[in-house]
Amino acid sequence: MNIKPLNDRVAVKYLEEEEKTRSGIVLPDTAKEEKPQQGEIVAVGKGCTPEDGDPEVKVGDLVVFDKYSGTKVTIDGEDYIILNLEDVLAVIEK
Amino acid sequence: MNIKPLNDRVAVKYLEEEEKTRSGIVLPDTAKEEKPQQGEIVAVGKGCTPEDGDPEVKVGDLVVFDKYSGTKVTIDGEDYIILNLEDVLAVIEK
Amino acid sequence: MNIKPLNDRVAVKYLEEEEKTRSGIVLPDTAKEEKPQQGEIVAVGKGCTPEDGDPEVKVGDLVVFDKYSGTKVTIDGEDYIILNLEDVLAVIEK
Amino acid sequence: MNIKPLNDRVAVKYLEEEEKTRSGIVLPDTAKEEKPQQGEIVAVGKGCTPEDGDPEVKVGDLVVFDKYSGTKVTIDGEDYIILNLEDVLAVIEK
Amino acid sequence: MNIKPLNDRVAVKYLEEEEKTRSGIVLPDTAKEEKPQQGEIVAVGKGCTPEDGDPEVKVGDLVVFDKYSGTKVTIDGEDYIILNLEDVLAVIEK
Amino acid sequence: MNIKPLNDRVAVKYLEEEEKTRSGIVLPDTAKEEKPQQGEIVAVGKGCTPEDGDPEVKVGDLVVFDKYSGTKVTIDGEDYIILNLEDVLAVIEK
Amino acid sequence: MNIKPLNDRVAVKYLEEEEKTRSGIVLPDTAKEEKPQQGEIVAVGKGCTPEDGDPEVKVGDLVVFDKYSGTKVTIDGEDYIILNLEDVLAVIEK
Repeated sequence: MNIKPLNDRVAVKYLEEEEKTRSGIVLPDTAKEEKPQQGEIVAVGKGCTPEDGDPEVKVGDLVVFDKYSGTKVTIDGEDYIILNLEDVLAVIEK
Repeated sequence: MNIKPLNDRVAVKYLEEEEKTRSGIVLPDTAKEEKPQQGEIVAVGKGCTPEDGDPEVKVGDLVVFDKYSGTKVTIDGEDYIILNLEDVLAVIEK
Repeated sequence: MNIKPLNDRVAVKYLEEEEKTRSGIVLPDTAKEEKPQQGEIVAVGKGCTPEDGDPEVKVGDLVVFDKYSGTKVTIDGEDYIILNLEDVLAVIEK
Repeated sequence: MNIKPLNDRVAVKYLEEEEKTRSGIVLPDTAKEEKPQQGEIVAVGKGCTPEDGDPEVKVGDLVVFDKYSGTKVTIDGEDYIILNLEDVLAVIEK
Repeated sequence: MNIKPLNDRVAVKYLEEEEKTRSGIVLPDTAKEEKPQQGEIVAVGKGCTPEDGDPEVKVGDLVVFDKYSGTKVTIDGEDYIILNLEDVLAVIEK
Repeated sequence: MNIKPLNDRVAVKYLEEEEKTRSGIVLPDTAKEEKPQQGEIVAVGKGCTPEDGDPEVKVGDLVVFDKYSGTKVTIDGEDYIILNLEDVLAVIEK
Repeated sequence: MNIKPLNDRVAVKYLEEEEKTRSGIVLPDTAKEEKPQQGEIVAVGKGCTPEDGDPEVKVGDLVVFDKYSGTKVTIDGEDYIILNLEDVLAVIEK
């Protein structure tokens, strides 16, 4: 089963705790009990690729996003967040 | 009797519980008592098909949408939600 | 006496209860005590007809609209709702 | 003394009660204690006349408008409402 | 000392009570204890004059404006209101 | 040390009380305990100068602005307000 | 590990207290217990550089920003704020 975000949306899979520690990204104190605001892009909509030039994000990118953006869905027992590309704040490169 | 959504709207039929389980889509905990946020597209407005290129959704697609979008109507005892194409988040492909 | 909606507005006459039952359209439970959100178009403004192509609605169409849209007026003892074309969700074809 | 609405605004004079009854326009129950939402156009701004084509309203037209639109002023003891053309919902033709 | 409103703003001087009575403009009851919503234009910004055609208001015009628009300032003991041209509702001609 | 406002912003230095009295600008009663809403422009962003024509404000201008606009900062013990050019209401010329 | 802000966003590192004192920037009283609203730009998105002309900010710039803008993240134990270029108010030059 596959998730195909429409338009300029991306689907992001939450990082597991171990991975998060390994990646070294820590959330500020006030967000301790909140859902993590980072994850890995697993699918991008067609509107995420500009006609000329490179896309800003691609499948596999580790991204940071605002904890109030996007809509959470669970497919086959896996948590995803679907959010607009404009709500992806930054890519973290290892 | 037929429902013809205007402009860039689509009509979506809620999935039955069994189907939902079969499709493997589960809602997050906080949405337990809410209406499901998924369904099958049964009709699309004329504005959903771009002049050049393929439409992003078509009749029969299984889609995910935000639980606060759209307007619910019941026609011939069947529940539908009419929502703007831009409120359809993603298509789920089996 | 005649009602001429301006611009891209339409005037809609509420369906009588019997007609509503006959048409098979039933409102969801939460809307039980609300005004019905359907009716028949009795007049359309000049802005409802695009310069090229067919208009999306015409006088006589049975339409569904959001219960929070439009402005209610009573003319010659008859209830009407005047609403923007963009607030007409769908046409119901028998 | 004269009132000249600016831009795309119109000045509307409230109908007297007798006239309202004669014209057959009655307000819905919930608006009983509110100001009437109809009147006669007494002046139109220059922006109400499109460069090509006929204006949608003219002085003397009996119009319906939303009770929350416009600004009320009293000039020489006469009540007027100044409102944007886009807040005029419909013209009533006798 | 001079006040030069920027862009499409105008500076308006409140009418004295006597003048207001003389001009015959009376405010509706609900506005009794509010500041008067009329005055005389004393300065206009450069953006108030369209490139082609006449300006809609000029210094000396008696104007009506919404009591919630504009910003009040006092210069040399005189009260002014600085407001956008689009918040001037109408010109009153004697 | 220098402050360089970005884009279409200006940096304004609050007038000292004596200067304010000298300039004759007095605030309305309701603003008595508020910060003064006037000051002198000390820096302008590059976006404040239109490509053709003169800028509307320049360094040294005495300006009036809405007390809710802008962001206050203190640099080297001096209070400044950084605000968008469109929030500068008027220039006061002595 | 690297942070790559998307689009027209910048990543800013909060200044340490000593640095802040050295730079002479002090926050107004009401902001005493708030996070500092200044910092050094450590990364800029591709959308921050206009096609023609110089960018308004570059890596290393000391900038001032509104304390309600941006999203805070912590990467490798270091606090950053990611904010839109349009929320950067000014550059401070030493």
